[in-house]
Amino acid sequence: MRMYDCIEKKKQGKALTTEEIRFMVKGFTDGVIPDYQMSAMLMAICFRGMDRRETVDLTLAMRDSGSVLDLSSIPGIKVDKHSTGGVGDKTSLVLTPIVAALGVPVAKMSGRGLGHTGGTIDKLECFPGFTTELSREKFMQNVTEIGVAIAGQTANLAPADKKLYALRDVTATVDEMSLIASSIMSKKLASGSDAIVLDVKTGNGAFMKKYEDSVALAKAMVSIGNLAGKRTAAVITDMDQPLGFAVGNSIEVIEAIDTLKGKGPKDLTEVVFALGAQMLQLAGKADGREEAEALMQSVIDDGSALEKLAQLVQAQGGDTSYVYDTSLFPGAAFTKEVRAETAGYVHRILAREVGSACMLLGGGRETKESSIDTSVGILLKKKNGDEVRQSDTLAVIYGNDADKTEQAARQVARAYEISAEKKECPPVVRAYISE
Amino acid sequence: MRMYDCIEKKKQGKALTTEEIRFMVKGFTDGVIPDYQMSAMLMAICFRGMDRRETVDLTLAMRDSGSVLDLSSIPGIKVDKHSTGGVGDKTSLVLTPIVAALGVPVAKMSGRGLGHTGGTIDKLECFPGFTTELSREKFMQNVTEIGVAIAGQTANLAPADKKLYALRDVTATVDEMSLIASSIMSKKLASGSDAIVLDVKTGNGAFMKKYEDSVALAKAMVSIGNLAGKRTAAVITDMDQPLGFAVGNSIEVIEAIDTLKGKGPKDLTEVVFALGAQMLQLAGKADGREEAEALMQSVIDDGSALEKLAQLVQAQGGDTSYVYDTSLFPGAAFTKEVRAETAGYVHRILAREVGSACMLLGGGRETKESSIDTSVGILLKKKNGDEVRQSDTLAVIYGNDADKTEQAARQVARAYEISAEKKECPPVVRAYISE
Repeated sequence: MRMYDCIEKKKQGKALTTEEIRFMVKGFTDGVIPDYQMSAMLMAICFRGMDRRETVDLTLAMRDSGSVLDLSSIPGIKVDKHSTGGVGDKTSLVLTPIVAALGVPVAKMSGRGLGHTGGTIDKLECFPGFTTELSREKFMQNVTEIGVAIAGQTANLAPADKKLYALRDVTATVDEMSLIASSIMSKKLASGSDAIVLDVKTGNGAFMKKYEDSVALAKAMVSIGNLAGKRTAAVITDMDQPLGFAVGNSIEVIEAIDTLKGKGPKDLTEVVFALGAQMLQLAGKADGREEAEALMQSVIDDGSALEKLAQLVQAQGGDTSYVYDTSLFPGAAFTKEVRAETAGYVHRILAREVGSACMLLGGGRETKESSIDTSVGILLKKKNGDEVRQSDTLAVIYGNDADKTEQAARQVARAYEISAEKKECPPVVRAYISE
Repeated sequence: MRMYDCIEKKKQGKALTTEEIRFMVKGFTDGVIPDYQMSAMLMAICFRGMDRRETVDLTLAMRDSGSVLDLSSIPGIKVDKHSTGGVGDKTSLVLTPIVAALGVPVAKMSGRGLGHTGGTIDKLECFPGFTTELSREKFMQNVTEIGVAIAGQTANLAPADKKLYALRDVTATVDEMSLIASSIMSKKLASGSDAIVLDVKTGNGAFMKKYEDSVALAKAMVSIGNLAGKRTAAVITDMDQPLGFAVGNSIEVIEAIDTLKGKGPKDLTEVVFALGAQMLQLAGKADGREEAEALMQSVIDDGSALEKLAQLVQAQGGDTSYVYDTSLFPGAAFTKEVRAETAGYVHRILAREVGSACMLLGGGRETKESSIDTSVGILLKKKNGDEVRQSDTLAVIYGNDADKTEQAARQVARAYEISAEKKECPPVVRAYISE
């Protein structure tokens, strides 16, 4: 078997066999197939695509390129959750304690993403002392005892995907559906959970901007998961504006805590409930969405969801007093209000612009080596459809550098589009995809 | 400027600017742009193509990546000739002495190609003592004194093309029209001639199998040449069967000598006259095709074309007695006749199969390091349209290994298709492309 022939075949629009895909992934991971052949293949795939069977084969070959975690010693149905990412997305911080409080074990390996804000791990590290460096024994012990543990990714999960993604990233071959779906799913399948719930964002702040593309990606991933033997479901949620009001690190943690107390933003709460309901159903804890939502409301109302967050923080060395008194989180040195220049209704908030303003303030990581300033961020005061009078505050910028605070404020001002007509906002939960 | 953005742009089907193309070629040649980005670009070009302006830009950028020969000290209009290659193509061996005999200076740099037979240089080396390792001074001196010199490629001509071709060769990105055209033309433009005549082969033994593709390639190359300021013309010639009767090295030299004596195969003679007429016209030696052909016939008839070959051989250290007595060329140890199993008419001779049989006998080079056996080869006795009776000899195999001779014979037998109906053969010179 020669990689040359595989490239030629895909270039001609033919489907690669299972053997060809395994040969290609193994050879590439082992360094036998050079980058330049793989990048030609990736570009050919961008033009020709891969059918469902090929995509599953690619996913499984990448899953099998490294360790596949074994969580079988933890009792219960382990349900993993993945988001395609967006601005202000603190869903995991809320969702994880809620489902854990309801007896669904959460054994989560997270990476530190690059982006406009830190990842879940960075946000958890806002609690002083919190560590994600857990031994495998401690990790399993915590999940068994308190039902939740979140560790940094230490295992060698899907190294083929890592290597392939790095190549896609520099060869303009990131945005092909089957490549995106197999990349995400290979890691999820290697993470050892029994079921998977996917939060596929759609809109200007999402990776998939068009609704149809988001649905196609969701369907591709759900199909891969199910064909790989994991019960998988997806929810399409809106990312045409940031989720919630807070964009940053500690301010997102504060918003997540508010939400766990039942006082969170409406859109964030809806997304959490939609995803959580899917997780509880896949875990066999509820028979329908209504029952699941009632259960979730109960652990918010009785404080046990917030208590679960405190248990998680404590078990991983963090200071739990911050959970109960969010005013302890250090604030930023400078505050700047972004005010409306005209009256009207918020028509659009370019989520990416808000995200990049946060990055500019130091709230996100530009390179793997960058450190994050957890105290900076942006608090939105107006969201889509809200009425705005002239000089109303649209958002507040929190920064530790005067110039950058001003710059971020200008950028956030540009992110707001005000129109004369009131906008019809679509529901934040756009669709459920289960097959 | 970033290569990533150039790839993305081409992937989206947009034309690259002149600056982007120069940036890309320079960066790739210098090793700043890695192979894996260039191969992604090449694959994107395979799907999206390049327009005429982009193709010219690519050609010129590759030409300028190395030396551009200066032949201006040689008086007269220097006309170069290039063939896209085929089986039994000994045209240069005949054409070069004819045009040189008519006062068109031929200063040719040739490479040793890989393929079913050796290149022009390998064939000239059939004359014992012949060398193509000429100093620049000797090279220029020979062209000035006897009107012809053929040297091995010593100068650093179009290194970007060399590097790019090596990458295309292993990434299934060879067969895109603008890449093919710019590759050929970059070397021709670097070779320093004033005008260029292209022999674009068409048919089953050619790189371009479809007539329309051959015409498109010819038009692309003629347009590049003219836009680059060189008078350029192309002739589309048939390669639906090997050219002439001989496929090999010394047997092709013998056939070339026969043709210089006016006793060559009809198809080869026609191709030589068609190309030669273009060369003479571009060189200002003749006003039309008829006049050019008459001139060519005159140097064949009076022996001065053959004499020019002898001068070339002598000037480069070769034994001229072989020019006048071709029986001196050593023969092969084994001879095997391929006989017709059925009666009928020759419908097709798969040129590639005949070529690969010659390669099998040792007449071609599989890798750059292979040596060539110049005495082996295949002499066709029947060509397209010829009537064949059962057990008539179709071809004769000359080999130096008994097993390989048998194997080659079986392969050549398979290359012949005999049908009941007489085939209508198209003319060997299919079209002239001058703009």
